[in-house]
Amino acid sequence: MKRIGMLTSGGDCQALNAAMRGVVKTLYASGEEVEIYGFLDGYRGLIYSKFRMLTGKDFSGILTKGGTMLGTSRTPFKTINDPDENGLNKVEAMKQNYYKLQLDCLVILGGNGTHKTANLLREQGLNIVTLPKTIDNDLWGTDMTFGFQSAVNIATDAIDCIHTTAASHGRVFIVEVMGHKVGWLTLNAGMAGGADIILLPEIPYDIDKVIEKIEERDKRGSRFTIIAVAEGAISKEDAALSKKEYKKKMEKYPYPSVSYEVAAAIQKKTGREVRVTVPGHMQRGGSPCPYDRVFASRLGAEAGRLILEGQYGFMVGYKNREIVKVPLEDVAGKLKMVEPGATIVQEAKLLGISFGD
Amino acid sequence: MKRIGMLTSGGDCQALNAAMRGVVKTLYASGEEVEIYGFLDGYRGLIYSKFRMLTGKDFSGILTKGGTMLGTSRTPFKTINDPDENGLNKVEAMKQNYYKLQLDCLVILGGNGTHKTANLLREQGLNIVTLPKTIDNDLWGTDMTFGFQSAVNIATDAIDCIHTTAASHGRVFIVEVMGHKVGWLTLNAGMAGGADIILLPEIPYDIDKVIEKIEERDKRGSRFTIIAVAEGAISKEDAALSKKEYKKKMEKYPYPSVSYEVAAAIQKKTGREVRVTVPGHMQRGGSPCPYDRVFASRLGAEAGRLILEGQYGFMVGYKNREIVKVPLEDVAGKLKMVEPGATIVQEAKLLGISFGD
Amino acid sequence: MKRIGMLTSGGDCQALNAAMRGVVKTLYASGEEVEIYGFLDGYRGLIYSKFRMLTGKDFSGILTKGGTMLGTSRTPFKTINDPDENGLNKVEAMKQNYYKLQLDCLVILGGNGTHKTANLLREQGLNIVTLPKTIDNDLWGTDMTFGFQSAVNIATDAIDCIHTTAASHGRVFIVEVMGHKVGWLTLNAGMAGGADIILLPEIPYDIDKVIEKIEERDKRGSRFTIIAVAEGAISKEDAALSKKEYKKKMEKYPYPSVSYEVAAAIQKKTGREVRVTVPGHMQRGGSPCPYDRVFASRLGAEAGRLILEGQYGFMVGYKNREIVKVPLEDVAGKLKMVEPGATIVQEAKLLGISFGD
Amino acid sequence: MKRIGMLTSGGDCQALNAAMRGVVKTLYASGEEVEIYGFLDGYRGLIYSKFRMLTGKDFSGILTKGGTMLGTSRTPFKTINDPDENGLNKVEAMKQNYYKLQLDCLVILGGNGTHKTANLLREQGLNIVTLPKTIDNDLWGTDMTFGFQSAVNIATDAIDCIHTTAASHGRVFIVEVMGHKVGWLTLNAGMAGGADIILLPEIPYDIDKVIEKIEERDKRGSRFTIIAVAEGAISKEDAALSKKEYKKKMEKYPYPSVSYEVAAAIQKKTGREVRVTVPGHMQRGGSPCPYDRVFASRLGAEAGRLILEGQYGFMVGYKNREIVKVPLEDVAGKLKMVEPGATIVQEAKLLGISFGD
Repeated sequence: MKRIGMLTSGGDCQALNAAMRGVVKTLYASGEEVEIYGFLDGYRGLIYSKFRMLTGKDFSGILTKGGTMLGTSRTPFKTINDPDENGLNKVEAMKQNYYKLQLDCLVILGGNGTHKTANLLREQGLNIVTLPKTIDNDLWGTDMTFGFQSAVNIATDAIDCIHTTAASHGRVFIVEVMGHKVGWLTLNAGMAGGADIILLPEIPYDIDKVIEKIEERDKRGSRFTIIAVAEGAISKEDAALSKKEYKKKMEKYPYPSVSYEVAAAIQKKTGREVRVTVPGHMQRGGSPCPYDRVFASRLGAEAGRLILEGQYGFMVGYKNREIVKVPLEDVAGKLKMVEPGATIVQEAKLLGISFGD
Repeated sequence: MKRIGMLTSGGDCQALNAAMRGVVKTLYASGEEVEIYGFLDGYRGLIYSKFRMLTGKDFSGILTKGGTMLGTSRTPFKTINDPDENGLNKVEAMKQNYYKLQLDCLVILGGNGTHKTANLLREQGLNIVTLPKTIDNDLWGTDMTFGFQSAVNIATDAIDCIHTTAASHGRVFIVEVMGHKVGWLTLNAGMAGGADIILLPEIPYDIDKVIEKIEERDKRGSRFTIIAVAEGAISKEDAALSKKEYKKKMEKYPYPSVSYEVAAAIQKKTGREVRVTVPGHMQRGGSPCPYDRVFASRLGAEAGRLILEGQYGFMVGYKNREIVKVPLEDVAGKLKMVEPGATIVQEAKLLGISFGD
Repeated sequence: MKRIGMLTSGGDCQALNAAMRGVVKTLYASGEEVEIYGFLDGYRGLIYSKFRMLTGKDFSGILTKGGTMLGTSRTPFKTINDPDENGLNKVEAMKQNYYKLQLDCLVILGGNGTHKTANLLREQGLNIVTLPKTIDNDLWGTDMTFGFQSAVNIATDAIDCIHTTAASHGRVFIVEVMGHKVGWLTLNAGMAGGADIILLPEIPYDIDKVIEKIEERDKRGSRFTIIAVAEGAISKEDAALSKKEYKKKMEKYPYPSVSYEVAAAIQKKTGREVRVTVPGHMQRGGSPCPYDRVFASRLGAEAGRLILEGQYGFMVGYKNREIVKVPLEDVAGKLKMVEPGATIVQEAKLLGISFGD
Repeated sequence: MKRIGMLTSGGDCQALNAAMRGVVKTLYASGEEVEIYGFLDGYRGLIYSKFRMLTGKDFSGILTKGGTMLGTSRTPFKTINDPDENGLNKVEAMKQNYYKLQLDCLVILGGNGTHKTANLLREQGLNIVTLPKTIDNDLWGTDMTFGFQSAVNIATDAIDCIHTTAASHGRVFIVEVMGHKVGWLTLNAGMAGGADIILLPEIPYDIDKVIEKIEERDKRGSRFTIIAVAEGAISKEDAALSKKEYKKKMEKYPYPSVSYEVAAAIQKKTGREVRVTVPGHMQRGGSPCPYDRVFASRLGAEAGRLILEGQYGFMVGYKNREIVKVPLEDVAGKLKMVEPGATIVQEAKLLGISFGD
C-alpha cells in the first residue's frame, strides 16, 4: 500500500493534468494498492491540510485539459519559513500533515520557486519526487519542461495573426512574450513566427540597433517589422545599472511593460506608428499540444516508476533525449538561460534576425 | 472591356482577399475583357495614383490569406475635403485619377468610415460598389460583415485559454475584446467562451452589479469569474455625463483602457486579484475562418455580377439569408448596434450571464 | 416543480452539450424547482428506463466539449413500432416510463430520424420540445442546425491540408465530405477550401464534365485539382435509374464509396494519379466552434423558455435570424436540400467552381 | 560567387519551404554573391533541366506555408540507373546538368529514398548537402526530421475528434496513422491522443491481445476503445511468414489497408461495431507547426553554413540537442525504427497502453 500526496504549485501551465495522470496510471497499473491525496492550491493545501482523495475516475479524460485539477497558487519561497498571519509555522505544518496522513511520498509539479521549497521539504526528511513544469523552460537540469511547447504555439499564433495585419498597414508591431527573466519562449516563438527582431533578457538591446534593422528593412522594401519582445527584455543602459540604481529607476517607470518602452523609443526616434500586443496569460492556457501531452505523460510514468522503486529526492528530467533523474539539491535555485553565443542564437542571426545587440 | 479599380480601406480584417478574389473571378469568368487596377493603402492610393495592375495570378491562393494584398490605411472622413499638406484637394484628386484611368467602376471594401467616403465619391458621380468589411459587424444595412466571425473565433480562443488558467488560480479574469463602440464581437465571443459577465457599450454597467455577480458565483463554489469587456464598454456614471464632461474626464483617465478601470474597481472593492488580457490586433489577423471565406466569396461574386450589369451605387449586403444590394446613401453614417432588449441579450441573460445592468 | 427528461439521439455532433446546458441553465435560473432526468444512449434510455439524475454541476464546463454526455444511438424509426427481441412494445415502454417518472416534458436533441420518432411521441400525447442537431443541416423548418458549422470547419481543414500536398505533387485530390443525401456540408466546405469541383447529391454529375474541368485547369497551368465529393453524390446515369435498378447495381458496387468511383473513372479516362481522402467521423467530433456554441446555447435557452411557458410540440428553429418555434408535425419526414438553382450555387459557379453538370 | 541547386524529393511534408528559406537566407546574409537554381518536381527537374532561378522575394512569406514551392515527385532509387523511356541515362543527365550550370553544390531535401540517390550523386563526384525531411521520422543519423511534429499534431487532432464521437456512441474506433514501415508517428499521436491500443510495424500484434484489452476496458465501464494503427502494422502471423509467402498472401488481400483487417477481426470475434478513420494525406499538409518551423530553419541555416565553408557530402542532422553533420554514406539505406524495448514504449505500457503483444 502506497499513500501518495500530489500538488501543483506556481503559475499554472498546460499538461499539468497529463503529467499527474501519468503518475497515477503508472501507480495503479503496478497492481499495488494506492491512495492519492490531492492537495489543493499548491503548498497552501499541504499547509492547511486541504485535499481531495483522488481515484482513477478523476484522471479519466484529463490528458487534453489545460490548467490543473488541483488548483495552484504562488507561495513565495522567501517567506516560507515565516509564520502565517495566525502564527502558524508553515514548514512545520507541511511536515505534520505529511506525517499525519502517513504519506510515502509527495509528488510536486512546479517551476523554479516550487523547486526551492520542494528541496527544503526534502532536507526536512520528506520523500519528494518532482516534475518540471513551466512555460519558461528555465529549469536547470532538464532540456525541456512541459508547458513550454504549448506556450510557444500560442505565442507563435499571436505573431502569425499580427503578421497579416502588420503587412496590411505597413506598421511596426511588437508582440510581448512571457518567460520571466529568461528568453527561451520568446526566442522560439520569434523564430517560428518569422519575427525580424527578437529582444531577450539575456542579450541586452541597443535601441539604435533595433531602429537600424527597421530602417534597413524599409530600404529593402519591407513595409513592416515584427519585434518579439520578452517580458524580461532589458536595454544595455539598464543592464549596466547597479541593482540599486535599477530599482530606483523602476520606481518611476512610466510604462506598463518593456514592450511599451521599446515602442515609445521607436516612435520618438523614427516617427513610425508602433503597436503593441500582449497575449499575456493566454500563453499558459488551453489544451496542451501533442508534444507536451506525450512528454508530460512520459515524465509522469517515470515518476511513478521512481515511487514504486522507492527512489526519492529527484526531479524527473530530460537530457539528450533520455529521461533522467536529477537530485533536487542540484535543481533548486538555478536557472537555465539562453547563452548569448548559443548555437540557436547564431542560427537565428544567420537567418537575418536581429537581437538588437 | 471593363476597367475596374479596387481598394481596401480602414482597419484590415480577415477575408478581404477572399472578397476581392470573388469579384475578380466573377469578372474574368464572364468572358468580358477586364482590367483591374489595385489602389494601394486605401484611399491614399486613389488620391496619389499609386496602383498595381492585377491579373488572375495575383488572386491565386489568396482565399485563405489574412490581411489585404493591397494594403490599407485609415483616411479620416472628417478631413477628406481638406487639402493635404501640399495643398492638394483630395476629393478632386480621386475624381481625376478615376477619370484619367477611364475606370468603369470602383470597388471599395471597408467599414463605417470607408462608407462615408464611398458615398461622397458616389455623390461626385463615380460608379461605386462596396463590400461590408469589419470585425465589428456594426455596418448598417447588412446582417453580417466579413471578418466578424473570424474575430469571434480568435477572441473566443483567448477566453478559452484564459478559462483554464482562471480556474487553476481561482482568479477574476478580464478579457478585453475589440469592436469600437459596438458590442457584437464581445457579446458573441463572451457567450461562446462561457463568460460569466459581459460588458457592452450599449448596456452601461454598474460596477456594484458586476461585483454582486462575482460574489454570487463565489457563494456557489465557483472559484473564478471570467468577464468579457468590450473596448468600448462604459459605466453608468460615465454614460450619464454630457459629451463635454466625458471628454474632460477622459483627459485625466489613468487607465490604458476600460478593462483596467473595471479591474481596479473590483480589486479595490473586493480585494480580489484581477488579471487583464488584451488580445488586441490579433483579432484582425490570421487566416479567415470557413464561414468568412464562403461569405466573402459570395458577396464578391454578387459585386462582380452588379458590375457586369452596370448597377452602381450599392453596398452588397446580407439580409434574412439573402444577398441584397443596399443604396450607399442608406448605409453611410449609420451604425448597427446591439439593442439592450434584443432577443440574443435576453437569451444570454437566461443562460445566467450578467451584463452588469 | 418541473420534471424534465432529456435525450440525444442519432449520430452525435458538436454542441449537443452546449444546447443541453442552455436548456438547463434557463430552467434553473427561473427559480422554479427542477428535476432533470438524462436518458442514456438516445431513445434506448427512455425505452429501458436507463437514466441519470442531472444537477447543475453536470453542466459546468461542458459548453466547449464535443460529443454528448448522455450518449446516443441510432434507433431506426422504421422499426420503432416493432416489439424488441423480448417482445417489448418500444413505443408503449417509452410512454410508460415518461408517465412513471411524472415528466412534464421531454427535450429531444436530434436530426431527421429522431424527429420522426419525436413527432410520434407527441401524437401519443407526450409533451415534447426538440432541438435541431445535425452536421448535415438538412432539417426542414430551420435555416441552420448546430454541428453544421463545426463540421464545415473540420472538412475545410481537411481540404486546406490537402491543398498544399496536391499542389506539391501536381495531383488530382478528392476529399469526401459527410452529409448523407444532402450537399450543404460539401458545398460550404468546398467553397471555403477553394475546391475546383464540387459534387453534390442534388446535382448529379457527368464524369466527362468533371474531366473537362480538370483538363481546362491543366491548360491554364494549374498543376492540380481539388474535388470535394459529398458522400451522397451520384452520377447522372445512376440518378436516371429506377430505385430497383439502382439497388441492384449497388449490390455489386466495387467501391468503398462514391469518391473512389469518381477517382477510378478519372484515372481510367485520363491516366492521372488521383488520391482520395476521407476525414469521415472526424467531422462529427471535437470542440464545437464558437458559432455553434452561441447558436446551440441560444436554442437551448429558448427551449427552456418554452418549457417554462408550457408550450410543447415544437422544434426550436432559426428563420431569417430569428429564433422560431416550428410545429413538430411540420418538421418530421421532410428534408431541406440544396436547390440546384439556389443563389449560393449560382455564386459558386460565378467563382469558377464546376458542379460537373 | 556561389551557384547552388536545390530540390525537394519524395512525398512532400510541412516545413520544406521553411528549410529552403533557412538555407537561402543564410547564403544571402553572408554577403557572398549567390545564384539559386530551384529544380522542379524533385530529381526529375535535375534530370530534364527544368528549373527556376530563385531570388530573395521567392522566399518571403513562405516560413508558414506547407508543401514545397519547387514541387516534388517520387523517383524510385531502384531504377535510377535505368535509362528513361527515351533511352536517356538519368544519372548521367543529372551530372551533366549539374556541370553545365557550373553548380557549386546541390541542396537536396528528402527522406530515405531521396538519400540513396543523393549518396549516389555524391559518389559520382557532385557536392551534396541534404536536409532530413519526412513525417515518418525514420531517417538514420538524426534524432528528428522536420514534418514529423506537424504530422503528429494532425494525427492527434484526428484522434481527439474521434474521441468525442467514440465516447458518445460507445464504439471501437480505429484511426489509421501514416509512417510507412515505421511506428514513430503512430506511437506519438497515439500517446498524445490517449489511444488505448497502439499497433506498430515494429511490434507485431496478436488480435486476441487486442480484443482482451477492449474487453478489459468494457469490464471497467469504459464504453469505447480507441486504437491507433500504423499503416505498416502487421500481425504476428504475417510477421512470421517468409517474404515470398507474405507477398503471395497480399496478392489476395481483401482489405483497403491493415486497419480494415483489424476492424473486421474485432467485429467478427466480438460482434462489436468498429469504425475506421483514415486521415491519410492530410498528415503531410497544412502549415508547419512552430516546432517544425524553428527546427527546419535551424537545419537550413546550418546547411547554408556548410556550403559557405565548402563542406560537402553531409546530411545536416540533430543529435542530443546539437545540430550535427552526418556523412551521406552513413545515412543512405538505413532506417531508424522504434525499438520494441525502447524507454518510450515501456513508458506507454506503464500508462496502460496495449501494443497487442
